[in-house]
Amino acid sequence: MSKDKAFVTEITPQGEDFSRWYIDVIKKADLMDYSPVRGCIVFKPDGYELWENIQGALDKRFKDTGHRNAYFPLFIPESFFQKEKEHVEGFNPELPWVTEAGGEKLEERLAIRPTSETMIGHMYSKWINSYRDLPLLINQWANVVRWEKRTLPFLRTSEFLWQEGHTAHETEEDARQETMKMLDVYTDVVENVLAIPVIKGQKTPSEKFAGAVDTYSIEAMMKDGRAVQAGTSHYLGTNFAVAFDIKYLSRENTQEYCHTTSWGVSTRLIGALIMVHGDDRGLVMPPKVAPTQVIMIPIGPPKMREQVIAKTDELYAQLKAAGVRVRVDDRADVSPGWKFNEYEMRGIPVRLELGPRDLENGVCVLVSRVTGEKKQVPLDNLVAEVQTMLDEVHQQMFERASQFRGEHFFSVETLDELKASLEEKRGFALAGWCGSEACEKQVKEETGATSRNIPFEPGETKAKCLVCGDESKHTVVFARAY
Amino acid sequence: MSKDKAFVTEITPQGEDFSRWYIDVIKKADLMDYSPVRGCIVFKPDGYELWENIQGALDKRFKDTGHRNAYFPLFIPESFFQKEKEHVEGFNPELPWVTEAGGEKLEERLAIRPTSETMIGHMYSKWINSYRDLPLLINQWANVVRWEKRTLPFLRTSEFLWQEGHTAHETEEDARQETMKMLDVYTDVVENVLAIPVIKGQKTPSEKFAGAVDTYSIEAMMKDGRAVQAGTSHYLGTNFAVAFDIKYLSRENTQEYCHTTSWGVSTRLIGALIMVHGDDRGLVMPPKVAPTQVIMIPIGPPKMREQVIAKTDELYAQLKAAGVRVRVDDRADVSPGWKFNEYEMRGIPVRLELGPRDLENGVCVLVSRVTGEKKQVPLDNLVAEVQTMLDEVHQQMFERASQFRGEHFFSVETLDELKASLEEKRGFALAGWCGSEACEKQVKEETGATSRNIPFEPGETKAKCLVCGDESKHTVVFARAY
Repeated sequence: MSKDKAFVTEITPQGEDFSRWYIDVIKKADLMDYSPVRGCIVFKPDGYELWENIQGALDKRFKDTGHRNAYFPLFIPESFFQKEKEHVEGFNPELPWVTEAGGEKLEERLAIRPTSETMIGHMYSKWINSYRDLPLLINQWANVVRWEKRTLPFLRTSEFLWQEGHTAHETEEDARQETMKMLDVYTDVVENVLAIPVIKGQKTPSEKFAGAVDTYSIEAMMKDGRAVQAGTSHYLGTNFAVAFDIKYLSRENTQEYCHTTSWGVSTRLIGALIMVHGDDRGLVMPPKVAPTQVIMIPIGPPKMREQVIAKTDELYAQLKAAGVRVRVDDRADVSPGWKFNEYEMRGIPVRLELGPRDLENGVCVLVSRVTGEKKQVPLDNLVAEVQTMLDEVHQQMFERASQFRGEHFFSVETLDELKASLEEKRGFALAGWCGSEACEKQVKEETGATSRNIPFEPGETKAKCLVCGDESKHTVVFARAY
Repeated sequence: MSKDKAFVTEITPQGEDFSRWYIDVIKKADLMDYSPVRGCIVFKPDGYELWENIQGALDKRFKDTGHRNAYFPLFIPESFFQKEKEHVEGFNPELPWVTEAGGEKLEERLAIRPTSETMIGHMYSKWINSYRDLPLLINQWANVVRWEKRTLPFLRTSEFLWQEGHTAHETEEDARQETMKMLDVYTDVVENVLAIPVIKGQKTPSEKFAGAVDTYSIEAMMKDGRAVQAGTSHYLGTNFAVAFDIKYLSRENTQEYCHTTSWGVSTRLIGALIMVHGDDRGLVMPPKVAPTQVIMIPIGPPKMREQVIAKTDELYAQLKAAGVRVRVDDRADVSPGWKFNEYEMRGIPVRLELGPRDLENGVCVLVSRVTGEKKQVPLDNLVAEVQTMLDEVHQQMFERASQFRGEHFFSVETLDELKASLEEKRGFALAGWCGSEACEKQVKEETGATSRNIPFEPGETKAKCLVCGDESKHTVVFARAY
């Protein structure tokens, strides 16, 4: 494939500086812009549409599993945070406070929600009276704010967009089932829609959500070997029920506390999919969420231009009618080579080239963004061919990411081995852990890696703690994380 | 139709106290709840789903007219508001301020956005360089906050959900065309989706958006004769372009200011559709946005129950597969009469009754929520019959609302006539106006009515100002408003 050298070098190669590559590519592909407010970004149309498509995939699954959407206030009274001790300790340092409104000083400060367990807990205590009101299965799509010291577009911003599910149940068993069900929904979307393989597991106590009994996560490996927590699901026990008095009349006619859950994913998924799939040529968009799935580029000499464009328009209409997100670039003053580079950089999964000779032969060429493979296909079966190739690109992306993760997933016995592995080849490490916070802390201090989770399927079981050498209680995935 | 008297009387009749009727019905139908934050409500699932369905109808039309969604920060630096003089004067009294975040006092206060012209103006000045970047057509779905003194669920809340379109154009003509196009989109959705007839027109200078050159609105009449501004579209001229330096290189190679527009509708549409369509039995939901369009109620003696329910489930699956939003209430411990009342109160557009004799005859009964009309229809054509009835209900609702508006739309020559009309039969009044702010103010002070808009199609043209008797400049609709 011919390359415009000057064009390509505007993106820092991943191997040279992965962080710069990331910023280069999201800016150049027009996904976001910095805003004048510290740590807050603007989601430009292509960035926002990625989120809309992720939302669509999640929302359908939430509704299919019996959840309904609702909306709760942005503001949370200060007193609400005081009700759950761990929760306030976890979130207090990150809260922005509204202290004045409508020209007056407020009697009680209002926090901008960092998450809504407290507000929703308060409302649930009003709404739930009897076991007949349970389970209560609600999700909210919202903006939340956490005043972050170090920010990175999409992955860690002060304001971000997310969904937060909040459910209440009669029993621990029901609530734990819900917690796992939603972790499975997240896994389904991240793997089968975003083409990102994840490791499912349980967070260690020091890494769990402030106020949860147990937190579960899915962890994804970026191309620099770092981890991104792609989604979390929490079993909250009766912690918030006790704090907010969420009680119900049981089938046995007694007053019981509800068992509650919460679970969320956010716009950081956009950052994750870029860092998992992108390469030195730019973005690679997962076909199922790509704002544009197919870019059509008519090519050939000026005298044939009219015919080629007429056919392009006809095929465009066919693809569009079939629900394919397709665009045409028929600009005459820009070379096909420039366009090829441009749309590769933007990560459009499939490029469709149509020239005069193709027209004669009743074919066109489809090119995969992932492998560069070119495939000549008959025009009279175009819709099916395009859909097949989009599926193939998804599959190729998932396989490529899985292979990368396999090559950067190592197994260590000691802290020194972990250090060496993290230096030599960045990635995830499986290690034994005695269960003490001290050992976990030492790993973090000496390597910068944190326990990502205790995987449900670790592959192997470690006998000894990597730090103290005592008997291992859990086999844990450690990694440096975003 | 038999009625459970005790049940029905829980809703205050509209004629007795319209405001209490409104609160009764939205609480009882589970659309919202009050929150512990002043002026902020919780959108419960049925209330929120109304909004989701309204969003769907709007979003499709925005995209069909070439707009894309984006997302801008919640926070707006104080200095931004100072840049457009009218804008800051208009919004300053209503702003909540974040003064502390992350444990520190902020150097510059951050407002919670009441609308985003300033932030978006700032970003557009970075994004727009040449006429090739124009028109820039962006919409945002977001929460906004205006610290209101007097609030009313859905119609006026401190935090509300809305969309705000922001576009930039080369010429005044282009921008004015866009302003009108979006007013037409709003009219289409409010009339053809929400079944609410509206009056399109231009706001008088004193009622226009803070910072706009011209504001256009659609105005709807509630069942108590008051007006709700259901949507606005603003031609902003170069006001924000000058304030935020949004310039472009023209086709003639000169630097020019853009002409910009903004337009928005909000969750107050939920309040409007309730107040336009509801009656003493409760809500009446427009079929195109109703969370549940059809409620199926199997009836008959216990011994036939199994057969009837089996058939109900089969029909339910047919309707659902056809995209009808349908629910079944087959509870055995609740009487059909109670259910009829309950779903009438909740405003479900169509009730489907199926009993043993119907089963034998291969029919069922459909009942319109608006007219109470019962229609026996063959089961083998059920999907089409249901869709026809949903269309009829929409049509009936639009006609009923139009008729009501016709009966409460009067024409006056003087301020005394306006006063008398507002007392006798509440509604809208068409009157002449000289164009002076003083006369407009006097109308407001003496009658509580404000100028709603200068209708594009007033029906008749008034010769004299209703206050001073001077020559009329505009024929204006006056009304008390929410």
